[in-house]
Amino acid sequence: MLPDRVTVVEVGPRDGLQNESEPITTDVKARFIQKLVVAGLSQIEVTSFVNPKRVPQLADASELIAKLPNAPDVTFSALVPNERGLGRAIESGIKRVAVFTAASESFTQKNIGMSIDESIAAFAPIAKRANEAGMSVRGYVSTCFVCPYEGQIEKERAREVTTRLLEIGVDEVAVSDTLGAATPIDVHKTVGFILKNVSVDKIALHFHDTYGKALANVVAGLELGITTFDSAAGGLGGCPFAPGAAGNLATEDLVHLLDQEGIQTGVDLTKVVAAASVIATALGRPLLSAQWRRLHANSATDGD
Amino acid sequence: MLPDRVTVVEVGPRDGLQNESEPITTDVKARFIQKLVVAGLSQIEVTSFVNPKRVPQLADASELIAKLPNAPDVTFSALVPNERGLGRAIESGIKRVAVFTAASESFTQKNIGMSIDESIAAFAPIAKRANEAGMSVRGYVSTCFVCPYEGQIEKERAREVTTRLLEIGVDEVAVSDTLGAATPIDVHKTVGFILKNVSVDKIALHFHDTYGKALANVVAGLELGITTFDSAAGGLGGCPFAPGAAGNLATEDLVHLLDQEGIQTGVDLTKVVAAASVIATALGRPLLSAQWRRLHANSATDGD
Repeated sequence: MLPDRVTVVEVGPRDGLQNESEPITTDVKARFIQKLVVAGLSQIEVTSFVNPKRVPQLADASELIAKLPNAPDVTFSALVPNERGLGRAIESGIKRVAVFTAASESFTQKNIGMSIDESIAAFAPIAKRANEAGMSVRGYVSTCFVCPYEGQIEKERAREVTTRLLEIGVDEVAVSDTLGAATPIDVHKTVGFILKNVSVDKIALHFHDTYGKALANVVAGLELGITTFDSAAGGLGGCPFAPGAAGNLATEDLVHLLDQEGIQTGVDLTKVVAAASVIATALGRPLLSAQWRRLHANSATDGD
Repeated sequence: MLPDRVTVVEVGPRDGLQNESEPITTDVKARFIQKLVVAGLSQIEVTSFVNPKRVPQLADASELIAKLPNAPDVTFSALVPNERGLGRAIESGIKRVAVFTAASESFTQKNIGMSIDESIAAFAPIAKRANEAGMSVRGYVSTCFVCPYEGQIEKERAREVTTRLLEIGVDEVAVSDTLGAATPIDVHKTVGFILKNVSVDKIALHFHDTYGKALANVVAGLELGITTFDSAAGGLGGCPFAPGAAGNLATEDLVHLLDQEGIQTGVDLTKVVAAASVIATALGRPLLSAQWRRLHANSATDGD
C-alpha cells in the first residue's frame, strides 16, 4: 500500500545550480523560483550560504532571498555550512535552513574537512541557534548507501548519523544517495533499518539519477511508507563540465510517476518543465529529464 | 527474494534500429551484433522480415543473417509479420522467429491492420510452420498496460492475448509496454495477474524508457519472479525525428542494475556500451542511456 500523498522538496535552485559554472543572474534564479511556486511546489531550497569563493554561483544568496515571491504557503530554505553562514541566513530573513554531513568518514573529510563527529559537534550549536531564532532545520546525510572512497556504506552508520542529526534539533533528515549509486535493495535495507528507530515523517529521500535508478529507488521508498522526496526541476545538478551527466532526480519525472500511481503532490509537472526552461535558456542547453526530452521531441508509438 | 539469474534479450538491432531513418549498412549492423555477442548476450533479435518498403532500414534482413558471427551459444531471432516473411526467414537459416500482436484492439488495427482475433488466426499457421521447420517462436504483445488510443488496458485482455499466443506454439511472450507508460503498480497488477495462469518462464518483460520508469518496472518484474527482460544496447529505439526521445530500456542500464543487485546475467556492460558505440558512430549522435552519458562525461561527486 503506497502513501496517498507525497511532499516534493524542490532542490533545483540550490543543489541543481551549485555546480553550474555558467553564471546565472539573480533575476533569472528568482524567475525560476517564482515559476516553481506557480507549479505548486511547497518546499523549495533556494540557495546556500556557503563560502561565495567556493560556490560562486550561489554568492548572491542574500540578494536572491530578498527577491523571493510572497508565497505564505511555501517554505523556502537555504543551506548553511557554519556559524557564519547561519548569521547570513538569519539576516536574510529565511525561515528554514539545512545542515549537511555524511555517513562516510572519508566523504565527510573530503567534502567539509571534518570527521562526522566534528560535523555533528559543529552543527549542534548552529541548529540550536537557528531554532532559537525561530527557524526550522533540515539535515542532509550524504553517501548513505555508497561512498566514492569507501564503497558500500553499512546501514548502521547511515542510521547513526541520521539519529544524531535529529537529536541536535533537525526536524527532517534527507537520506541521500550522492552518487546515484543506490539500488532498490539498498533502499529497502538501509532506509528500512533507519525506520526501525526513526519515525517515517522525519525522513526524506534524496536521489540522484546518475544511473537511471532514481525512480526505482523512489518506488522502494514509497513501499517503505516514505512521503517526502527531494528532486530538482529539469534534473539539474549534473557536472558543469559534462553536459550529459545526470544530476538530481528530475521533479517532473518524479511527479509523473506519482501522478500515475495516484499519489497526490499538488505539483503540476508541465509547469515544472516551464520553470526548468528558464534555466535551460540561461544555460543555453537542453535539460536531461525524460519529461523534458519527451516534451521537446515528437512522439513515436510504433513498434512494441 | 529476487531471482539469482536473468536472461537479457537484446532487441537493439531490430527494435532499436527499425525506426532509424539514417541508413546503416549491413556491415555496420553485423559489427554491432558481433560486439553484442562478445559482450555476452545470448539472445539477440537481429532483424525483421517485414515489408522492406515499410521498414527500409531492415530490408537487408537476409544479407545480415548471412553475416552473423558463428556463435553456437547465441540464439539469434528475427521478427516475422506474415507467411511471406516466414518464408524469407526459413530461407535465411535463422532458428528463432518472433510474431507480434497487441492487447489493444485499436493499436492492433492501426499497427498491423487486423483485429486481435485476426492476428492470432494469422499467426497460428505461421507458428505451426515455424515449429515444423525446427524454429522456435517468440511472441510480442504490445500495449499490455497502456494504449495510445484506448488508455489503460485491462489486465484480463493482456492475459488473454498472452495465453492465446502460447496456445498457438509460441514459447515465450514478451509482455510489452510500447509507450513506456506503465508504472510499477501496473506491472504488479497486470503481470501478477498473467502469472496466475502462466508459468513465469514463459514471460519476458519488454519496457521502453520514455518516462524514465523502465528500471522501476524491471524491479517490479523481478519482485514477481520474472527472469527474462528485453532491452536494446544504447537505449536505441527512439523516434528518428526526435533525437532526444527515449527508446527501449538500455541494455547497459539494465545490466548495471542487475549487477548491483547481485543478479547474474553473463553480460559485460562496458562491452555493451562499446557495441552501442558502433551505432552511435554510424548515426553521428550520442546515445541516451545513463551509462552512455556517464562514460562519456567526467564524474562529479560534489553535493549531496
